[in-house]
Amino acid sequence: MNVLDLIAGARAGKQRDIARLISCIEDGATDAREAVAALAGCTGRAHVIGVTGAPGVGKSTTTSALVTAFRARGNRVAVLAVDPSSPFSGGALLGDRIRMQQHATDEGVFIRSMASRGHLGGLAATTPQVIRVLDSAGFDAVIIETVGVGQSEVEIAATADSSIVLIAPGMGDSIQAAKAGILEIGDIFVVNKADRDGADTTVRELRHMIALGQHDGWAPLVLKTVASTGVGIEELIVAIDEHREWLIGSGQDRMRKLRRIRDEISALVIGETRARLSARAAELDALSACVLDGTMDTYQAAEQLS
Amino acid sequence: MNVLDLIAGARAGKQRDIARLISCIEDGATDAREAVAALAGCTGRAHVIGVTGAPGVGKSTTTSALVTAFRARGNRVAVLAVDPSSPFSGGALLGDRIRMQQHATDEGVFIRSMASRGHLGGLAATTPQVIRVLDSAGFDAVIIETVGVGQSEVEIAATADSSIVLIAPGMGDSIQAAKAGILEIGDIFVVNKADRDGADTTVRELRHMIALGQHDGWAPLVLKTVASTGVGIEELIVAIDEHREWLIGSGQDRMRKLRRIRDEISALVIGETRARLSARAAELDALSACVLDGTMDTYQAAEQLS
Repeated sequence: MNVLDLIAGARAGKQRDIARLISCIEDGATDAREAVAALAGCTGRAHVIGVTGAPGVGKSTTTSALVTAFRARGNRVAVLAVDPSSPFSGGALLGDRIRMQQHATDEGVFIRSMASRGHLGGLAATTPQVIRVLDSAGFDAVIIETVGVGQSEVEIAATADSSIVLIAPGMGDSIQAAKAGILEIGDIFVVNKADRDGADTTVRELRHMIALGQHDGWAPLVLKTVASTGVGIEELIVAIDEHREWLIGSGQDRMRKLRRIRDEISALVIGETRARLSARAAELDALSACVLDGTMDTYQAAEQLS
Repeated sequence: MNVLDLIAGARAGKQRDIARLISCIEDGATDAREAVAALAGCTGRAHVIGVTGAPGVGKSTTTSALVTAFRARGNRVAVLAVDPSSPFSGGALLGDRIRMQQHATDEGVFIRSMASRGHLGGLAATTPQVIRVLDSAGFDAVIIETVGVGQSEVEIAATADSSIVLIAPGMGDSIQAAKAGILEIGDIFVVNKADRDGADTTVRELRHMIALGQHDGWAPLVLKTVASTGVGIEELIVAIDEHREWLIGSGQDRMRKLRRIRDEISALVIGETRARLSARAAELDALSACVLDGTMDTYQAAEQLS
């Protein structure tokens, strides 16, 4: 089956063709290039929602609750779980089986774990390409769930139209939040597990820190949820809608889509450099030994490889 | 004052000269290149210890306790706190003031927060260069504390001789640990806050998961600490010594130092590509607009910039 057939199938909403098309892009086969070319001009109708936060904060549970809420109003939803590349496992550690089994039989939901498999440009290039596939397949919302925050490549990969940052009570005290760099990336902050002690303090601290920051026309919202029971999810959906309306009204929508494309192109160019370095691994090893032995410095070594 | 004077001062253990030399490298001035060249041949006497883990797990407290323990046996210690780059703050968010004030007046301790300030090669190149400065200044141990795990650039920057991964009870359940990718990077696992419920379960789960993995001659250790009271820190120091002996005996020491150099050279080469992209930002913007409007695909755009 060739790529154009897969794209036609994906456009018709066939889950299997969507999955195959994504695999083809992830594997970085020559087909991938063809697929990306064929999808050029896909104009970004889907709303891309990032869900991020530290491990244990309830990202998968929140994502699952969002999926349920989107489905309840008839939207089709795709979820991309972006795992950091694991050099040992060579793939997504969790896979689709553990998370969100309740949506497994729903044709209006597509779930996929992504892993960086050495494709040119890595996650930062692959994720926007996969978003384009899902967009062309007619999903109304694409939720990108990332493991952790402050992860350069993953962060770029997760460039969303609306970024939701999850924080757990007690983990969200101001210093820890600042440490993880999360204050700068959220459009909507959600204090999850809000039935725990300290939730209100965390909300107050977040609001205070947000008030101190600078915002380009959108003051980030702070909400409380208990994702495991669905409390606050309706309000979260409303907040996402509100942010989307602001994006479109302010022209930020186009800006964010442009940023995602810029990041993707940059990732491809840098991926090219990485590929060049990989191809010259023996030379890099020899130069490293010279540096270790003190006969060369690292700048000189880098010049040899440029 | 020129770079060679600073290097002489640093070699004599002058804190102020060490700090200036590091700033010079971080700023990426032309001096930085000269400094790196002058430090070539610095053969890596210092033991580089990575301390990592999720936010809130007690990294700063553990690092501080390690510093105290190293000092008690007469070792000189440097601490590098590596923060992910913050595009808004443009620097380390915490700074040296908050953490480890108790060591502030100890001449045998050097503490520094690092931030990626757009220097060519970023943290991944700067950190090894700064380690070389500290090494030449005669520190016996260099502790690199990183915020979070699974962060590509920070991870590379933190390439240590011995990697300590901190886990808190309850955060350490197997799936979360696997998610964060931490099982693959630790030489020593420390369940900190071990006076809390679930510590023994976490230790057991970690040991089980480690037993399932593959190890090249070193089976990672799992210890318990309560860093805030110093419980278990002596055992941790013994474990670090043990790992160091294994490194040297097995030849892994040279392998890890070579890996650090390889990563640094690669970061410089990739930094060169990034610098080239920055210099062509207007062109990148124009190409991105073409992609958004559907008249070009991202691979074609990347080729224009290669």
